Amino acid sequence: MGKQNKEFVKEITPQSEDYSQWYLDVILKAQMMDYAPVKGCMVIRPYGYTLWENMQQGLDKRIKDTGHQNAYFPIFIPESLLQKEADHVEGFAPEVAWVTHGGNEKLTERLVVRPTSETIICEMYSRWIQSYRDLPLLINQWCNVVRWEKVTRPFLRTTEFLWQEGHTAHRNEEEAEEETKKMLAVYQDFVENDLAMPVITGQKTEKEKFAGALRTYSIEALMSDGKALQAGTSHNLGTHFAKVFDITYLDSDGELKYVWQTSWGVTTRLIGAIIMVHGDDRGLVLPPKVAPIQAILIPIAPKKAREQVLDKAAEIFTALKASGLRIKMDDREEYSPGWKFNEWEMKGVPLRIEVGPRDLEAGQAVLVRRDNGVKETVAISELTRYIPVLLEQIQTNMYHKAKQFMEANTHRTDDYQEFKQIMEEKRGFIVASWCGNSDCEETVKEETKATIRNIPFHLQQETPGKCICCGHEAKHLVIFARAY
Amino acid sequence: MGKQNKEFVKEITPQSEDYSQWYLDVILKAQMMDYAPVKGCMVIRPYGYTLWENMQQGLDKRIKDTGHQNAYFPIFIPESLLQKEADHVEGFAPEVAWVTHGGNEKLTERLVVRPTSETIICEMYSRWIQSYRDLPLLINQWCNVVRWEKVTRPFLRTTEFLWQEGHTAHRNEEEAEEETKKMLAVYQDFVENDLAMPVITGQKTEKEKFAGALRTYSIEALMSDGKALQAGTSHNLGTHFAKVFDITYLDSDGELKYVWQTSWGVTTRLIGAIIMVHGDDRGLVLPPKVAPIQAILIPIAPKKAREQVLDKAAEIFTALKASGLRIKMDDREEYSPGWKFNEWEMKGVPLRIEVGPRDLEAGQAVLVRRDNGVKETVAISELTRYIPVLLEQIQTNMYHKAKQFMEANTHRTDDYQEFKQIMEEKRGFIVASWCGNSDCEETVKEETKATIRNIPFHLQQETPGKCICCGHEAKHLVIFARAY
Repeated sequence: MGKQNKEFVKEITPQSEDYSQWYLDVILKAQMMDYAPVKGCMVIRPYGYTLWENMQQGLDKRIKDTGHQNAYFPIFIPESLLQKEADHVEGFAPEVAWVTHGGNEKLTERLVVRPTSETIICEMYSRWIQSYRDLPLLINQWCNVVRWEKVTRPFLRTTEFLWQEGHTAHRNEEEAEEETKKMLAVYQDFVENDLAMPVITGQKTEKEKFAGALRTYSIEALMSDGKALQAGTSHNLGTHFAKVFDITYLDSDGELKYVWQTSWGVTTRLIGAIIMVHGDDRGLVLPPKVAPIQAILIPIAPKKAREQVLDKAAEIFTALKASGLRIKMDDREEYSPGWKFNEWEMKGVPLRIEVGPRDLEAGQAVLVRRDNGVKETVAISELTRYIPVLLEQIQTNMYHKAKQFMEANTHRTDDYQEFKQIMEEKRGFIVASWCGNSDCEETVKEETKATIRNIPFHLQQETPGKCICCGHEAKHLVIFARAY
Repeated sequence: MGKQNKEFVKEITPQSEDYSQWYLDVILKAQMMDYAPVKGCMVIRPYGYTLWENMQQGLDKRIKDTGHQNAYFPIFIPESLLQKEADHVEGFAPEVAWVTHGGNEKLTERLVVRPTSETIICEMYSRWIQSYRDLPLLINQWCNVVRWEKVTRPFLRTTEFLWQEGHTAHRNEEEAEEETKKMLAVYQDFVENDLAMPVITGQKTEKEKFAGALRTYSIEALMSDGKALQAGTSHNLGTHFAKVFDITYLDSDGELKYVWQTSWGVTTRLIGAIIMVHGDDRGLVLPPKVAPIQAILIPIAPKKAREQVLDKAAEIFTALKASGLRIKMDDREEYSPGWKFNEWEMKGVPLRIEVGPRDLEAGQAVLVRRDNGVKETVAISELTRYIPVLLEQIQTNMYHKAKQFMEANTHRTDDYQEFKQIMEEKRGFIVASWCGNSDCEETVKEETKATIRNIPFHLQQETPGKCICCGHEAKHLVIFARAY
């Protein structure tokens, strides 16, 4: 067996040639996932799952730091429960998986495999909540959910996916609204800081809000092909579910009141977002904070110096690992250094550390960044101190690069012709005025495939002009984009 | 509202009166779980789920330290996949949930909600494994599984439960057998050290082994009512699945060979085991290593000294929390200290810390252990240093207490009449000789409700006598017990 492996000779499709194919090539070659025997389902392979575990850790800490506890609710929801809230059932019933038989017996009532857990959780909350002393009730769940999607794409839209769903109950509107916005801010903080992905926060339109919600807020990110991706949502459910599920509490004033509820979630589609925001034609580029492997150590050992180089490399590896770095050493003999460079670049490892005989003589190692390719030589004695600093720089640089891209691809226009042209030729976000009418929203979607991503908080102070579609007085400045 | 709450006036059923009812009373009152609207399913409430998270953390670390990585496989398995391995389908098909419809459409092939993931994982392994270089493949999965059980009991046997399932592939029998036993040892280490629960390790009989396995090993624990509970299993799958799913690899000698596989799992039933091994008539007793709350701080503040006591308590709380202790302060005004003592004893918190005005004057706090009720007075300045030591002692004491109970309730007999009498009157483990014949195993089960828990490793050196059932020359010394 030679030093080259066929797999890496066949390059991945360049983004400019076919972005969708690039995406699929990268996630398969980097072993992030594989297709499952069931249509629309995926296997998250160890490399992809470790990324998810690191993401979970960062987000779970934030969820707990804001006072929530995790719990687990059943995956099966009786049909009658799902059908209690009218908007909710309309939104979800067409896309659920139905369990009709248990063992050899037909069930007397069909069960839904949860597409989301509002209904089952509300059923339990109506038992658990009695008094204002039971509020706020702040619960989160990490689990799998199933939505029977017609068109699927790995991570972005799959029949089964993993997520967290927070479900809270409060005494009144103010507290519920505060919670809804607080968790949106938690998502923004997590996504921007840990995933190095800038987002636009804002409110969803009536048409795009969650089935059963009073108001939905979202964080919206921009992929490197100019399409938007909804990266997380937070819903103020009002008292809609409380009224249907009879979730009441005895307030301190002696009155029986309905609770106000919220729910909020992010999913494994964030993995797809990381890939599309940061990836390039060489493969993945992973943010150091969540990368499964933060640094790959590659000893470059010609035969005669092999033992000496490997000994020293093992020493460096041990010291860096002990310092808390997620590091791996690739000392496989059957592959050439060049082949290894390609493989770990494909896998998006933020930092490569090379040590060869000459480096060792000079007491130094070569560091190569994945984000910008910059190479530098550093004293081995300095590595433990320097690498965390460098990873921090990589993380920051990745965020700024993505932020610059987003800004450069955020257009603004009052002219519908120009709007259409931008959406056709450049895509990206378009900031435009909108009258607030669903018909205009629908027309723009039909004519340009762009939807209103959200009504951004940061533009609420500005006075909108005329509606981009109908030309009437506008109510909001909104962000349009074609979306995943 | 008075200082007493009705809930705690109604005591839980004593173990001696009705053990099953005691179990249900405790888990509901301690808010470990609640019944779900779907028969046999349960909601794991935050207190129960936090316990599970702490257990996961201890076990996941051990699984990773032994070289495994986590991944995620789909919850749905096509019927045709499940049916590939004959023993496996026979074992599981009668107890699975069937998905027959997706959205509004009938599926062309029914899907099984995974009862375990061997089949879907084997399907993927056959794609991923090509060469000896791909071996060993060491993957673990944390997920939910569903088995359509007729009789259920919270945590112990539920339609849906949570677990981890390890699935590995190896070059040959030796490596697979080594892995199977290594993971059994990992389970023993985890259960004995983190859950303070002594176990008997050994091999399952042919009749009791996993559907599709070559050999199954188990850890068996003894509950405080004298019934056994299988606390974890590790299977050497041989090449059964490899042959059916065509999982082959090109060995270094150029030959194409079948891989040898293992699988191993523990589930949320371990929570039930913790409750039954350590619990008493006052409620749960949780091992400090996994307890959601390790210490509950209760300020005892008469009105006139309230502010002073609360200030000092807050100071102690902050210092102990900062030291890494999982501590909670209960400063609710509406409940009396006595009521709080009962509640936190019910919840099994290992240590109670009381501070009252007189304690504060003397610069000390009162510590009360949940495991043995021992009370001691400790200088406040010593708490941060002393409490971790004390928790370690509690953990060790809980293990020894359970170990003594197990030893005291492990009987030995060669006489079948005595065997029957023990099983009827005292239960516990019975060490007895067995000929190795499934008919005898079945007869004993019919006549005494006792099954062979396993063929323990630690008795393999001893020469067995005559079979307890048929009187013929015996092959093994085994452990019999009635089991959950």
